[in-house]
Amino acid sequence: MAELIEDHEEEAFGVTESLVDGVLEAVDAGDAEQVDFLLDPLHPADIAHVIEQISPRERRDLLDVWKGGMDGEILSELDEGIREEIIESLAPAELAEAFRELESDDVVDLVEYLDEDQQEAVLDVLEGPERVVVEKALAYPEESAGRHMQVEIVRAPEHWTVGETIDFMRSGIDLPDQFYHVVLVDPKIKPVAYATLGRILSSPRSAKLRDICEESFRVFDVNDTAADVAHAFNHYHLISAPVVDEDDRLVGVITIDDAMTLLDEEHEEDILRLAGVGEGSLSDSVLETTRQRLPWLGVNLVTAILASMVISLFETTISGLVALAVLMPIVASMGGNAGTQSLTVAVRAMATRDLTGSNVWRVIRKEMMVGLLNGLVFAVLMGLVGYVWFGTPMLGVVLALAMVINLVVAGLAGTMVPVALERAGVDPALASGAFVTTVTDVVGFFAFLGLAGWMLL
Amino acid sequence: MAELIEDHEEEAFGVTESLVDGVLEAVDAGDAEQVDFLLDPLHPADIAHVIEQISPRERRDLLDVWKGGMDGEILSELDEGIREEIIESLAPAELAEAFRELESDDVVDLVEYLDEDQQEAVLDVLEGPERVVVEKALAYPEESAGRHMQVEIVRAPEHWTVGETIDFMRSGIDLPDQFYHVVLVDPKIKPVAYATLGRILSSPRSAKLRDICEESFRVFDVNDTAADVAHAFNHYHLISAPVVDEDDRLVGVITIDDAMTLLDEEHEEDILRLAGVGEGSLSDSVLETTRQRLPWLGVNLVTAILASMVISLFETTISGLVALAVLMPIVASMGGNAGTQSLTVAVRAMATRDLTGSNVWRVIRKEMMVGLLNGLVFAVLMGLVGYVWFGTPMLGVVLALAMVINLVVAGLAGTMVPVALERAGVDPALASGAFVTTVTDVVGFFAFLGLAGWMLL
Repeated sequence: MAELIEDHEEEAFGVTESLVDGVLEAVDAGDAEQVDFLLDPLHPADIAHVIEQISPRERRDLLDVWKGGMDGEILSELDEGIREEIIESLAPAELAEAFRELESDDVVDLVEYLDEDQQEAVLDVLEGPERVVVEKALAYPEESAGRHMQVEIVRAPEHWTVGETIDFMRSGIDLPDQFYHVVLVDPKIKPVAYATLGRILSSPRSAKLRDICEESFRVFDVNDTAADVAHAFNHYHLISAPVVDEDDRLVGVITIDDAMTLLDEEHEEDILRLAGVGEGSLSDSVLETTRQRLPWLGVNLVTAILASMVISLFETTISGLVALAVLMPIVASMGGNAGTQSLTVAVRAMATRDLTGSNVWRVIRKEMMVGLLNGLVFAVLMGLVGYVWFGTPMLGVVLALAMVINLVVAGLAGTMVPVALERAGVDPALASGAFVTTVTDVVGFFAFLGLAGWMLL
Repeated sequence: MAELIEDHEEEAFGVTESLVDGVLEAVDAGDAEQVDFLLDPLHPADIAHVIEQISPRERRDLLDVWKGGMDGEILSELDEGIREEIIESLAPAELAEAFRELESDDVVDLVEYLDEDQQEAVLDVLEGPERVVVEKALAYPEESAGRHMQVEIVRAPEHWTVGETIDFMRSGIDLPDQFYHVVLVDPKIKPVAYATLGRILSSPRSAKLRDICEESFRVFDVNDTAADVAHAFNHYHLISAPVVDEDDRLVGVITIDDAMTLLDEEHEEDILRLAGVGEGSLSDSVLETTRQRLPWLGVNLVTAILASMVISLFETTISGLVALAVLMPIVASMGGNAGTQSLTVAVRAMATRDLTGSNVWRVIRKEMMVGLLNGLVFAVLMGLVGYVWFGTPMLGVVLALAMVINLVVAGLAGTMVPVALERAGVDPALASGAFVTTVTDVVGFFAFLGLAGWMLL
């Protein structure tokens, strides 16, 4: 164990640069035994980490040398893109072998994003009952509680005692790998409460389960979205929660480790979407990455051209005073920044359900006030800069006014746009950025050049 | 239970707009009983949610009417700013009452960010042994495993059987609210393995604990950072993990619910920092929010002025052809966008430990290639736009060349800047945005105007 602690202190995850180098050397030398010696002691998540770190060519070589090393647990841990690539390269028998030891919810995670041919190939190698479970899960909507629940449930009738429960669990029934609660059900298999294993273990055998249940009890519906489930786990500090079907019957359980993964995925989606990177991971190829980012740059191009058209309205003004061309990007840039600040706070607050119908108007008012105050501060600063730099006092005044206007608009747009998008059923993280910076660019150039034309020339 | 399921289906969290309105009406009417009737059935996290949704004035009124309703669990769930505000308003006796039922790690979470006077006031109301525990935790560095661990541990000598363990737990000792593992320790109290409660419950009384232990076992050091702990839990799918001191002695346990909270906080920090919003929450006042955002806008102002100075080098060029002023923001904007894309992917990949010394050069090369390819696509598009709009073929060529140069630079800067910052010990999410957009603005304006001056005039 000492090594583990030592290792841990060296790096949070058990993969060091020298380990990756060692594996690559062994692969180059075709030394399967050495590869196995290095990789076998690692946690599947760490092996996946090594596979993700190396280049596509090195990956193919590694898999060639390390035949049979790939198993379902490593596949579960891999990035989607690499996982598809590897699954494609496996023969049906290898695939069957890889999937044999996985629990049904892990199999679902693995196959749900495969293309149909691959999905069919995997389903074909599953045994009868497991195949039924996986197909049933795949019938639920994408990103739903039904897709992500475990169907192995430890449940007990509500009238059972601690002793009966322990005896039942010792009777050699098939128990899930991880479980933290026993779910109490009524005769119609509707979940009514749950007891933690800690309470069960520390109570006398004669205690009734219903007397040692947790006070707080949350049930999810198979159709609840994964995002709602993840945020509810975080909000209520849940450890596991039963999932029911349309008839309120217990059909599965979601545990906190799954919820944590879902929450992490939600975050990744939000942060990447805010930056105009819809999806994708570090291991995607150059072409894939180019294709993923192109549409967002295209949207940005359209909004940039829109801003340019605003500028072109003022060509005569600019010809009259070239200083305007020098200073105009400052107003737009400050507006864009302030808008992004408001926008990001709003998107995050919507994700955590802190921004709701109850406070949206107060938040909008507040963001505009913040814009006004920061606008005034930077108006004074920029007014001085404009005056000192170009020696024209009125240029400073125009710059200052445009700054105030644009920062107030940034506060308004930064909050209104994501709220409006969400009400229209669009993910606010996805499209807000382009809208908000279009508004601040257009308003910024218009205010600055318009005021300049009016007040200076 | 049916209501709970019903409620759940109505909204993910148990707080509806009409509930908030109802509470505010009762507060206005001074009807303490009605307030209590509405709030008392709610989960503490939901009560905190209501308190966060309303305005500061409404909050003061609510607390006036709902005297004694505030307890430690609700305080734990509140945003920092509001929490401080409320703790300040409580008398020492109320404070003592509020903290009585909390576990020591929750107390630490509550007091760690209070100012010294408030911290002292809270510590003064704690009972002797609890105060010692809290003070010890506060002695560990901020954002460390030591700060966030529970010190209530369920541990057992490695030679114990399942029966001995169960008898020990039933002996009326003080057990933590939530625990999922029994940690096995050697005679020096060094953790050597752990067994899940599920395995203990389903094994015969005669089974040895050491024979039913989990294969995978991770130990944290009190000084490990909270971020490392959170990412390790997510990476290895841990449920709970022992924490040891400098002498490898077991001193605490971190559980997945704490790790999930930490991971969520890490994410919040990353997403807000990337947007130039250092900290802060929706419930902060206008002045606080203005103050938080001002420094970042100030940094942006400096970088925007830098870009303007580049433009001012080309004043004569612009006077010669005003179309340049119209088109130049497009090149800068596209570069800024592409840079933000690369930057966000890099920051996220560093947070998940996917971007490391092993692959950083490959990633930089890839990002530049992506920039080149997208640059070529948009160069063709923009070349046409420039030509059609202004009728000058060479203007299109200049625009196209500047676009390619700026997108390649964006890919390079978007990856290099955060990597360099991290190596310098600065959080890459914090400062990268300003650096990267400065680079793309400066390079964008310089390339476009410089090429124009050279090729067009």
